Amino acid sequence: MDTMGRHVIAEMWDCNIDKLNDVGLIEQIFVNAALKAGAEIREVAFHKFAPYGVSGVVIISESHLTIHSFPEHGYASIDVYTCGDIIDPNVATDFIAESLESQKCEKVEVPRGMGPVDVKQFNAL
Amino acid sequence: MDTMGRHVIAEMWDCNIDKLNDVGLIEQIFVNAALKAGAEIREVAFHKFAPYGVSGVVIISESHLTIHSFPEHGYASIDVYTCGDIIDPNVATDFIAESLESQKCEKVEVPRGMGPVDVKQFNAL
Repeated sequence: MDTMGRHVIAEMWDCNIDKLNDVGLIEQIFVNAALKAGAEIREVAFHKFAPYGVSGVVIISESHLTIHSFPEHGYASIDVYTCGDIIDPNVATDFIAESLESQKCEKVEVPRGMGPVDVKQFNAL
Repeated sequence: MDTMGRHVIAEMWDCNIDKLNDVGLIEQIFVNAALKAGAEIREVAFHKFAPYGVSGVVIISESHLTIHSFPEHGYASIDVYTCGDIIDPNVATDFIAESLESQKCEKVEVPRGMGPVDVKQFNAL
């Protein structure tokens, strides 16, 4: 398998606070985001923190999707990393932003597995 | 909990090929890396691909550690993301690089949860 991958780092602010604290809903959103992007799901692990917050991951054949939510700040920290050039990580990222009702989503795409890390190659989206 | 976090993206080349394909060993390295950095482990999920490669995650109270290995290329794609300012993600990253015997490890540290994403804030390490 080729090492080339696309890693979208997304900072989602002003999200729906109730959704950010609902571990069942977040897991469902992430599974659906992976499927919508055309990825093949391998492992799913989500954790609810007390009193607030959810962390979780969907491992896909093509890498991973992760979330760390901070309901008290309306913030979710999202990573969507897909290997290969068939799946577009932005499809999953945009689906997650829409599902969490983020009013302010900022994204950067980082090329992975291409050789040296070059910050100049990072693309603000 | 404060949203501030530190996310180390590490591209590890020229690793020990046998280690990159050993899912049990990689899981053990990642658990030890999290503990060595002082993190609290919440979920562990690793997956072995046929014929080559391992993907996995350790969810910690302070965010996550992930790997995608490509033994046939001697390459491992690593993310170590820690929230707060107590745990240094570089401690875990350096432990992983040493354990995988990477001869060429390149890292970038990305500030998370600080507001707008600013590529200029990314620090090549």
